[in-house]
Amino acid sequence: MILDGRAWRTSWLDGAEVVFLDQIALPFTVREHRCATVEATARAIETMVVRGAGAIGGAAAHGLAQAALQAPDEGFFEALAAADARLRRTRPTAYDLFHALDTVHGAARVCATPTQAREAAVDAALAYVDRSAAACRALGEHGAELVADGARVSTHCNAGWLAFVDWGSALAPVYAAHRAGRRVHVWVDETRPRQQGARLTAFELAGEGVPHTVIPDGALAHLMGLGRVDLVITGTDRVAANGDVANKIGTRMAAIAAAFHGVPFFVAAPTNTLDPDCPHGGAIPIETRADEEVTSVSGPVEAGAADSFARVRVVNPGSAVFNPAFDVTPADLIAGLITEVGVVPASPEGVALALRLAGRATG
Amino acid sequence: MILDGRAWRTSWLDGAEVVFLDQIALPFTVREHRCATVEATARAIETMVVRGAGAIGGAAAHGLAQAALQAPDEGFFEALAAADARLRRTRPTAYDLFHALDTVHGAARVCATPTQAREAAVDAALAYVDRSAAACRALGEHGAELVADGARVSTHCNAGWLAFVDWGSALAPVYAAHRAGRRVHVWVDETRPRQQGARLTAFELAGEGVPHTVIPDGALAHLMGLGRVDLVITGTDRVAANGDVANKIGTRMAAIAAAFHGVPFFVAAPTNTLDPDCPHGGAIPIETRADEEVTSVSGPVEAGAADSFARVRVVNPGSAVFNPAFDVTPADLIAGLITEVGVVPASPEGVALALRLAGRATG
Repeated sequence: MILDGRAWRTSWLDGAEVVFLDQIALPFTVREHRCATVEATARAIETMVVRGAGAIGGAAAHGLAQAALQAPDEGFFEALAAADARLRRTRPTAYDLFHALDTVHGAARVCATPTQAREAAVDAALAYVDRSAAACRALGEHGAELVADGARVSTHCNAGWLAFVDWGSALAPVYAAHRAGRRVHVWVDETRPRQQGARLTAFELAGEGVPHTVIPDGALAHLMGLGRVDLVITGTDRVAANGDVANKIGTRMAAIAAAFHGVPFFVAAPTNTLDPDCPHGGAIPIETRADEEVTSVSGPVEAGAADSFARVRVVNPGSAVFNPAFDVTPADLIAGLITEVGVVPASPEGVALALRLAGRATG
Repeated sequence: MILDGRAWRTSWLDGAEVVFLDQIALPFTVREHRCATVEATARAIETMVVRGAGAIGGAAAHGLAQAALQAPDEGFFEALAAADARLRRTRPTAYDLFHALDTVHGAARVCATPTQAREAAVDAALAYVDRSAAACRALGEHGAELVADGARVSTHCNAGWLAFVDWGSALAPVYAAHRAGRRVHVWVDETRPRQQGARLTAFELAGEGVPHTVIPDGALAHLMGLGRVDLVITGTDRVAANGDVANKIGTRMAAIAAAFHGVPFFVAAPTNTLDPDCPHGGAIPIETRADEEVTSVSGPVEAGAADSFARVRVVNPGSAVFNPAFDVTPADLIAGLITEVGVVPASPEGVALALRLAGRATG
């Protein structure tokens, strides 16, 4: 997507270097983070220079292609296996990471010579990230049909291109509608505790030139009551077989407010987030994260020196904190699941249909 | 209420000094702010050493009593009138401020001599703040009947004793139930953008020894979905004649979430917040406040030097912001209005009943 007048993805290959848009510095500084070695690439993934399941998958694909390009002929396949193992350890709960490494390593492993394997690894990595970007783009095209000219869209957290290779999920329909020339305005809620809305979604939309306004999380129902929100689109981490959706804490609040006001609430769900083995939302484990995300906030110091960052405390010292990372939105509050194979109902039938269209048999 | 093992009010008279609990330093430092002159007292009100309508009224009453104690016999009544005018300019939209000054000045003005007027002013001021505290206490006793042993109460923003002379509104039922020996746990939402929940409500509850947990604003529906919230009590800035309630932004979200989950949602409304001249919530003007409240957050620097405060930016630079200070909760989402004259329905009949019980004729 566009940033400072230039097209970006979250990572890419430049010769035998892996280059990242450095997400640690966002939204305050736009800079590249260049990795000359696989070890540097692995560390970039670990330290969250890149974050978001789709983006991590892309980074790992590029990292293994880098390993193939740099490994000498002697001991080539052992070096590739070592690089795979190193990359696999970076973010061990990220499903996309394993899928990307399996894809690239699988293409190289079957080759007879290092020369052929290098070419196969690079081709497989580039095809993997292009497929990922194309899936998000297709999701965006389907979702854009829901975004009329003049639409006022609300979103929560960041499910934009920064979390994927390109395009994103929840924001992809907005980008597609905007590029098609439709006027779109996005209400971006801050998304405490980590403020991905205020920091990342607002940053993405600004880069792409989409009009938007940041609001406190609590202001959404007020806007809906004033008739100033036409639809909501959020992302998801996991969709259960019955259409229940797990997503960033606060999504359930937004969905309930939308239902109360008669505002359609859509979830952008790439089919790899559909989990037919999970019967309903109650079966999705909810991670509780560190208190510090709630008790303190960090950012550049206002009126401070350039690059002067601070972490400030915002909660009464000594008070207990509860920080659930996700919540579950019941399927019956969801107007539809926007996938790369089309918009389907948030229901057992809709989930099964999307899986079938995506070529994932459900038995 | 209790703080560091000592009983406090938000302001009091000590000889001819007005003393405040310095709310600017809260929750990180507990200290007194002593004002030797009326001018110092006026500045304390202006600079928000004290805030909250009820607390400002009490501070103004103390300030005018201070003026009476310090004014010389010669030109006494002129000096008192000048002090009244000075105090009246401090926070010109605060209704309680005018009411307190009218009360104290009215008692002094009718006296024949400065000596009598001094006594009358002090008596009137002390009676005013005691009446204010007693009303909150009575509200708390009525509301405590809704707080069963083991109750898990959620609240929003700060409507505790720091915003009044003592006891508060939304927290008064919690304090009354707690002092009656019932086990109560309070879910305190952060309340962005100004974080009065995380800073002030958590601080108050800790001082009084009430178990509580701070959550991000977006987590309330998740907790309700888990069955972990028994009732909600918030404060209000203004109640319309039909029972609609204006309160801190985010209250409407909480009320809608409560309705969805079948959790009773109560509003603590001292009868002076009931406005029979306002027909419904749509007629209540909603203040839009400065962007900076959303775009940056301030607090003590973590791991910094003592007293090292910073303001850090948390929103993408250049993005637009919308910061409505209040929202309106429709009467039909409210299980009842807790007043100092009893719990009444949030309806035209309930509002009229409370006004009648409080001796305010409604024509």
